[in-house]
This record gives sequence, C-alpha cells and structure tokens, in this order.
Amino acid sequence: MLMQTHEARLSALREELKKRDLAGFVVPISDEHMSEYVGDYAQRLAWLTGFGGSAGSAAVLAHKAAIFIDGRYTVQVREQVDEKLFEYQSVPATSPAKWLAANAQEGDRIGYDPWLHSRGWVKTTGDLLAEAGAELVAVQSNPLDAVWADRPQPSAAAAAIHADITSGRNSAEKRGEVGEWLKENKLDAAVISALDSVAWLLNIRGSDIVHTPVALSYVLAHADGTAELFIAPEKVTPELQQHLGNAVTLRDRADFEPALGGLEGKRVAVDPEYGVAAISQLLEDGGATPVAKRDPTILARAVKNPVEAQGHRDAQATDGAAVSRFLCWLEANGPSGEVDELAAAAKLLEFRQADSGLVDTSFDTISAAAGHAALPHYKVDEDSNIPIPPSSIYLVDSGGQYVRDGSAGTTDITRTVWIGPDEPSAEMKDRFTRVLKGHIAIAMITFPEGTNGGQLDSLARQFLWAAGTDYAHGTGHGVGSFLSVHEGPQRIAKISGAQGGTLEPLQAGMILSNEPGYYKAGEFGIRIENLVLTEERRIEGADTLPDGGTWLGFENLTWVPIDRTLIEPALLTADERGWVDKYHADTRALLAPRLDGEALNWLERHTQPL
Amino acid sequence: MLMQTHEARLSALREELKKRDLAGFVVPISDEHMSEYVGDYAQRLAWLTGFGGSAGSAAVLAHKAAIFIDGRYTVQVREQVDEKLFEYQSVPATSPAKWLAANAQEGDRIGYDPWLHSRGWVKTTGDLLAEAGAELVAVQSNPLDAVWADRPQPSAAAAAIHADITSGRNSAEKRGEVGEWLKENKLDAAVISALDSVAWLLNIRGSDIVHTPVALSYVLAHADGTAELFIAPEKVTPELQQHLGNAVTLRDRADFEPALGGLEGKRVAVDPEYGVAAISQLLEDGGATPVAKRDPTILARAVKNPVEAQGHRDAQATDGAAVSRFLCWLEANGPSGEVDELAAAAKLLEFRQADSGLVDTSFDTISAAAGHAALPHYKVDEDSNIPIPPSSIYLVDSGGQYVRDGSAGTTDITRTVWIGPDEPSAEMKDRFTRVLKGHIAIAMITFPEGTNGGQLDSLARQFLWAAGTDYAHGTGHGVGSFLSVHEGPQRIAKISGAQGGTLEPLQAGMILSNEPGYYKAGEFGIRIENLVLTEERRIEGADTLPDGGTWLGFENLTWVPIDRTLIEPALLTADERGWVDKYHADTRALLAPRLDGEALNWLERHTQPL
Repeated sequence: MLMQTHEARLSALREELKKRDLAGFVVPISDEHMSEYVGDYAQRLAWLTGFGGSAGSAAVLAHKAAIFIDGRYTVQVREQVDEKLFEYQSVPATSPAKWLAANAQEGDRIGYDPWLHSRGWVKTTGDLLAEAGAELVAVQSNPLDAVWADRPQPSAAAAAIHADITSGRNSAEKRGEVGEWLKENKLDAAVISALDSVAWLLNIRGSDIVHTPVALSYVLAHADGTAELFIAPEKVTPELQQHLGNAVTLRDRADFEPALGGLEGKRVAVDPEYGVAAISQLLEDGGATPVAKRDPTILARAVKNPVEAQGHRDAQATDGAAVSRFLCWLEANGPSGEVDELAAAAKLLEFRQADSGLVDTSFDTISAAAGHAALPHYKVDEDSNIPIPPSSIYLVDSGGQYVRDGSAGTTDITRTVWIGPDEPSAEMKDRFTRVLKGHIAIAMITFPEGTNGGQLDSLARQFLWAAGTDYAHGTGHGVGSFLSVHEGPQRIAKISGAQGGTLEPLQAGMILSNEPGYYKAGEFGIRIENLVLTEERRIEGADTLPDGGTWLGFENLTWVPIDRTLIEPALLTADERGWVDKYHADTRALLAPRLDGEALNWLERHTQPL
Repeated sequence: MLMQTHEARLSALREELKKRDLAGFVVPISDEHMSEYVGDYAQRLAWLTGFGGSAGSAAVLAHKAAIFIDGRYTVQVREQVDEKLFEYQSVPATSPAKWLAANAQEGDRIGYDPWLHSRGWVKTTGDLLAEAGAELVAVQSNPLDAVWADRPQPSAAAAAIHADITSGRNSAEKRGEVGEWLKENKLDAAVISALDSVAWLLNIRGSDIVHTPVALSYVLAHADGTAELFIAPEKVTPELQQHLGNAVTLRDRADFEPALGGLEGKRVAVDPEYGVAAISQLLEDGGATPVAKRDPTILARAVKNPVEAQGHRDAQATDGAAVSRFLCWLEANGPSGEVDELAAAAKLLEFRQADSGLVDTSFDTISAAAGHAALPHYKVDEDSNIPIPPSSIYLVDSGGQYVRDGSAGTTDITRTVWIGPDEPSAEMKDRFTRVLKGHIAIAMITFPEGTNGGQLDSLARQFLWAAGTDYAHGTGHGVGSFLSVHEGPQRIAKISGAQGGTLEPLQAGMILSNEPGYYKAGEFGIRIENLVLTEERRIEGADTLPDGGTWLGFENLTWVPIDRTLIEPALLTADERGWVDKYHADTRALLAPRLDGEALNWLERHTQPL
C-alpha cells in the first residue's frame, strides 16, 4: 500500500466535510476520557498533520487550515508539519476558536466531535463562532475517522485486577462513599469517565494507554453503591469478574451511549473537565439532568491511604537505586563524549527494568544534554539526539510504574548532573544552588491545613526571582498510585497562571512533585525534582486550628544524591546545608543495602556532607 | 431632655416598623458611600444598641433582635449591649441574612435601606429570605432615622483644594483617562460614589469623616471627560469652584437622586462593592442600564505617581521622628509602671502634633499593654485602659494624615517594644524574631510583574508556621495618599481567606503595609509594621518578561528602630542580619538631623548593629 501524504489526507478530510455540509472541523489530541496521553486509535492530529508533540490541535476550513501549538513546540512543528498545508499558530495568543471565528464565513457550519471536547470548550467556542455568524455543530461520527483507512483499533488488552492488599481499600467501600456523596448532593448517579478514576474506584488496572496502566472503560456509579462498568467484553477475565463482585454489573462499552439515554428523570453528576460534551448531551436527550460536579473520586484518590503511601516509598527505594546505578554509569562514561541522549535513556531504562516490578516508564524520559536541557519538555528522538558533550550539564527527568502484590507506586524524578572532566562555571553553580534553595524551601515548609499550593509556590521561586529569573512551569503536580504521573486536583504553581488546582487545599496523604528549575536558552537547563507526601506535623505548643485542622508538612519520598559538584555551599544558610547533609545521609542509609561495587562507591562519594 | 434608653429606642423602631407594615429591619454600620469609617449622622447601630465597635450590624424583628459581631468584639459587645434587647451572634458563623431567614415568619416583609447596602448583599439576603418564604423590601426612607430625634446632621465643613502640585496630576487628566475607559467599555458614564475616589478624581479633600480627609459628595463622570459633582452648596468656596474648573458642573447633593433617574438609554458603570443598591435601582427606574464594573479610579489611585511617592517619603520622615521621640519617652517613663495606655496614646499624639502638617491621625491609635496587645484590633478607652506593667511588651499601631503644599502622605506604623527594667523571656524573643524574619522576607523579595499579594503572603508566615503558629489577619493592605489608610485594590493576604484583593497584580507605585504578627491570648502580642512602595528593579542579566513587564521589589518607606532588645540574633541568617543593620543605619541617617537631646541619644543606641 502506498503511504498517503499529509496533503492527500487533508484533501480527503475536506472532501468528507463537504459531503456532510461542514465548512470546517476541529482536530484536538484527545480521547473520550479527556486523557492526558491517548491511545494510537485517537492520534488523529498526528495522522492528519505529522505533528508528534503531546499537546496541540488543528482547525481545517475549505481553503485554509492551521495547527495550534504552545511555546514548547515552536521548533518541532516547523520540522514536522508542512506550512503549505497548515499555518502555524501559537496558543494562548490565539486558539482554534479565535482563528475559526476570524476566518469562517457568515453561515458556516463548523463541526466538532462531541466525544473529544468538554462542554466548557463547546460553550466558549460556540459563542465565539456565533458572534462571527457561524455555527458550531456536533458531528454524529468523526469525519476524520471516515477517511483514516488504516486507523488502529482501540487496544484489546485484558484489564487487570489491582488487589485490595495493594490498593489499601476495597472497591465496595469506595463505591459506598461515592453513593453517600450522591445522596448528600441529591443525585442519582455519577458518570465516571476519566480512566484513572475508573481504575481507582473499581481497583482495576490495564494497559491500553502508554505510561498509564488503565483500561478503556466507563463507570456509571449509583447512589446505592452499585456500579455499571462499560468495557469491551474481551478485556474481562473470569478472575477480574470475580474481583469486581456482584455489585458491579458488566456491560459492553458499546452500551454506554444507550445507557446514558435511559436515565430519564435522574439527576446525574458529570465532571466538567473530564466528562465530554456528548455525555451531557446524551443524558439530556434521554430526559435526565446532567449536573456539573467534580468527579467524586478525584479528591479521594489524591489522598493516599497508608498502604498506597508505603507502596510509593517501596517504589521510590527501588527506583532510587536504579537511577543511582545510572548516574554512576554516566559519571564514568559521560566525560568521553560518546554517550548520546538516546543511549543514556536506554541505559536508564535497562537499570529500571532490572526490577521485576517495573511495568512501564511513567512518561517519556527527558534525556537532555546541553541546550536541550533548557527545553523543560524536551523529548529526545532519532532526529534530535545529540552526544552529551564533555564538561556540560545533563538533565534527566524520568519515572517508573511499579507494582507487585501489596505494593505499587509511580515515580517521577529529575536530576541535573555535571559531566566532567572540567569544572562547572560559577554561573552554573549559582543557578543550580538557587534552584536547590527553592527545592529545600518547599521540602522544609510547615503550614496549617487549609493552605493551598498557590500559597507555597513563591517559596520555591524566591531565590531565582532575586537574580531576575524564573521558570515557566509549575512547581509541583499530584502523582497517582500506579496511575497517572500527573494527577489532580492539587498543584503547586502560580495562582496568577493558567494552571488549575492552585486553590485546592493540601491534605495529609496528597503526593506532590517539588521541581523548581532554571533554563538558559540554548545553553543549559537545571531542574531538581523529588516527590513528597503531605503529612501531619505534631508541633509542641502549636496553635489549635479551626475545624480540627492539623499542621502539615512534606515527607520526602525520592532518594537519589543531588549533584554536589553543582552546589555552591556559600549560598546556603546553615539550615539549608543541614537539609542537604541529612538528605544525603538518609539517601545513603536507604540505598546502600541496594547497591554494590562501583555504584556503592559512587553513593558513598556523592552523599558526603558538604 | 431625658436620655432615651436603648430599650425605648428599640421599641420606637418597632412601632415605626409596624406602621410601615414591616416585620423586621436590618441596621448596618454603613453610609451611602460604603465608607470604612462613617460620620456621626450614620452611626445608627451605636444609637440603637450602644455598641461602639467599628464593624457589626443588627437585625430587628417584632419579638426578637440580634447584634452580629466578629471575634474582635466578643468581649466588648457584652459590656456595651444589653443581651435582653439584642442576642449576641457571631459572624461569619451566622449573618443577619441567615438569622432572619431562620427567625422570620412566612410572608414577613423585612426592610433594608438601599443606600446602606450593596446589590450583592441585597441579592444574597433576598434569596435566603425567599427560601424561608419572607420578602426583603427596600424602604423609601430609613425608619430608624424617623425615630432618631436628635440625629446629627451630616458635616457641613468646607471641602478643600488638594493642589495639583501636591497630587502630582491634575483632575482634567484623570477625568480624561476615565473618559477613555468609558469609551473603551462602551459606557456613557460612571457613578463615582466612594468618597476617596471622588477626592482623588477631582483633587479635593474634606473633613467630613474622622481619620479620612474626604468630603461627602458623589461624582457622575462622563465619557467626554466632564463630570458632575454632587455636593452640599455650603461646602464649596469660590476658590474650590475655580480649582474645579468649567468641566466640572456643581450640583446640590440632593440632586443626585433625580440625576440618576434622568439617564434614560445610557449605560452607566457602578462599582459592585462601593455603589449602593439604590444607585443601580434609580438608574434602572429611569431607563438607564447600570453596568457592574470596578470604579475606574481605584487602580489608578493605587498606583502612586512620583509626587505622591515623595509625599509619602516626606510624611514618613516626619512621622518617624515623632514616633521615635515617643519611644524614647516611653523607654524612660515606662518602667515605672505609671504610664497607662491612654496616656501613652496621648503622648504619641502630642509628638505628632508638633508638626504643623498633621491634620489627623489616620485611624484610632492601638495602644496596647500586656494581654491587650494580643487583640490585633484592640481599641483603648476609659473602661479598658490599664497601666503598662513594668517588664512587659507594649504594642503601638498608629498613623498620621500629613499635608502641606507640594507634599502629602498617610502613615501607618506598628512597633512592639520591651518595657524594662527586666529582660524579655526567651519565648518572647523567639516569637518577635520569627515575626521579624517574616517582615524581612517581604521587605527583601524581588518578583516579576504579574505577581499578586496572595503569592507573597506565605513568605511572611513561614517562620511562624514552622513553630506551629500563625496570625489571623492579612500581611499587607494598600494605603492612600492623604486619603484612606486602608485602600484597595491590592492586598497581601491568604488567598484561602475571605479578604479581597489577593489576586490583584502588584504594580510599581502601589503602597502596601508589611505587618506580620504573633498573638498569645491574655499574655502578649507582637506586630512589626512598615509601609513599602512597590518599585521597579533593574537586575543585570534578568529575564525579559512577557508584555514588557518589569521586575519589582519594595522600597521601604517607614523608618523607626525595631526594638533590638526583643531580637534573638542567633535566629537570623546573615542576610537577615544584614537587612536589620542596614535598616537601622538608614534610619539613623534619616532621623538624626530631625532629633536632638535624649531622642538623638536614644536613636544612636537603638540603631547600633546587632
């Protein structure tokens, strides 16, 4: 079969739109669950345009089309997408909605797939188009899919049991809580459509999405604690069926649509962020009332129970040993100039795979040498791959998905290390130490319950701000338990920024990353990332807090030496120096029994006091 | 004439309500301008209940009544208000609206004066009452005023010119800017009803409200840059009329109501916070469209121009010398145990009054000894007054309104000092030093434009949090230029709290207080407050910020020694110690030429390096 060109694909889509009397169409990277990562069957933007990034969208009109990407992909889009077919547009300066409103003709019907967008998006975009005299219309089936001849099928992999001893709570209890929540809110049912929510609620996992161990499915949870699981029958083993029990009714994933239409008179919760527009529309068409409410599993899932917390500690110890072996290997081999970014990433994976509990990496490893490290979301591939130069900074941001009976966790760690043989510059050490001071400020903070991540963010930035610099990303995101490496609802970031979750009060049991950074375009990049677990703090003589609130702080979860070569001790206060020395002593105590030979020597050297 | 009892007053009000077919009525502390401080003519709550606090409200039904106060007034309300007449209710646990909804009968008509409440309050309260089957109705005239026989008239004091050389910008330019804003927003006019907004826009001042030099009046600002000033004719001198010029039409304050009714077809901006409900209602009744938009002078007023900034510096130098003389006097006289809180406040006022530019204090002086200092809003009076005990902590929070041709400013300073002869305890020094560290963190911070006060607040709290303690008030409020000592829109406070302004981006020219504190109930209180001016920072090699933004920091405005007796130097970092020493050296350099004799010696002693 001949490989179809992107020009031919675009023409075919335009033909199809014409047949359907549509003047245009919007193509996001999204799936029916609003997942962060999507399966191959949902990679519509890549098929249409050739774009390989993880965020972006396209808008197609009869005589012009555009691709919308953010600052991360300015270079990449030019390499991968033909400008003659798609003009390049930057978000947030513009958006498909604004571009369509500016370019559509009066009376145009612009299509969208209601299974790929939230209701909020539909409202905003529809209003903008209406102002321009055009109309946003939901399609019955996706016109792009109609012309994508060899579109992959959704994964048929079996769903897996996530044992109660590993999750720490059984599904009946979780469903009972959702049921209570429904009753309190005078609701009859909740649509659970986010894949990690389904997985958490029913204690199941899967392998349908890269990096995130979830199974393609939906749940309809009822006020009596029962649930209906909509899933392809071939994914369900008899063991899984037994695990799910009698209170969970199994239904074919294809039955989800008619099921939504059969809830006449019911009040049904739909998450405004994760529930696609089609869900609410089908409920309304069937005479039910969709009520926009946050998915009731999101907050419960974010607060890790003691078994989950221990699973994270276990995974971190395993992961810390693997990353340490890698850094030891890199220290020996890097200065030759013969290790490239891809080879480094492969070596790291090899060390991680030595553990039988590793299921997958938790995201694409960022293996970034020199100027590449200045791109916070750099993704190495055959085209971008470069050798790590001698006497340079190398940044590696990576993680693993680990599970064994009774223990599961998701890791995410960034280390920035100096590759010899020469010494780093004073500027590099200054910047590294400022990033480290911000990291320590978050690591050491104590705060009253009710405090949110937006209130803590500046603690991490203050030392960079003092030097007139900043990082254009958040300081911390939530992390799932053998689930998504990016999990809400909490976040440490600028409240003046666009990221959600900064107003969510932090609670004991929530995991967050702590990852300030510094980026000098074209030269080098620095990020120091550990995961932390929010914990209660008992302080002698502390104030009593309102509503029985407690004092909180962060337990450190990630243990890998922080490169002392890049630290300028004169910039640290006595407390900060004490933190670094204790961190290294604790790291040595934890990892020494897990390492031997060169790696053990490396650990000893890298965990000496400053 | 016999003094009427509060019981008789309440009975008279109930009679009046009955005549008007009202089942109840709400009595706030408020005026037609939603002022923070109100004139005697508007002290309705005090007249009805005897309550002397500055925040509170009452609700009156036929057979019961309640007074609503916050935590500051728990003790005071019991001393001043008869519980047999008014039950005590705490906000925010309850509110007049909730109490009325719980206590009103089906079909009750509950009255409110639409000149004393915002539209938002009317909506919220009306909805709550409607749920209970009762109705909230606007009265045509205030029934309490009808029975308040000897109610004072509003002040008839002449309004004053605020010279252009003192304000730094002429009114025509300010009005032109408001006109541009109106055009951009497709509006015809703006109601300017907040008294400090009127004063700022027209470069006038007054003496109708205690502590705040404003004149009772309204402005209707038009898109062509003209304005109508509604003000009692006897307040306007020929000189003032000339200062206002031809583009400002003078109209009687009594004409404001009909003027609002005469704007048929116009779109008129009304501030949702400062515009009372009556204003929007009159506009609607007259066929105009009230549009809820922030008063366009608020942000412009907050950003001080260079002349205003210099006026603040001048006022602070004068004020700093007066406060220093007072602290010197107190150091000599306090240890005897013979100085009481009222006498101390009087002495401080005497030192301030030595300057001919002092017009008024900027708020009631908080002169607080021992346990009184643990009440952040303590107000000393004859009943509460106590002698300052020897060997105790004394807290004084005060400020002045200063003006002379070409220079005007409003000050607000808190100093907490140790009264000998013994030494303070280790606990006191620990707490004082933690408060100081938070103060220094705000004083030293550099941040990118776009940052708001909610992002900076935790910097001030972190050292107290580490000890399991916190303060239940904001860290910083805006301050006017010879205007309100509390001025919006910016604020440094918890974004998780209820205070507005924490999301307002800080801009160069904005003044803020920096006032962390610590309070140990019944024992002692600590607060260290300086004012700071947001300024641009030029940093070599700094990142370029989006939209031409600049790096910002705080110029310190307030210069009075911080009591070294209470500082534990071992708790300070080298940078913090450096800040204290430089602060004291700068204070000495500024104040030494303004002091002599004992006060100069005191200054020398109190500004030595740590």
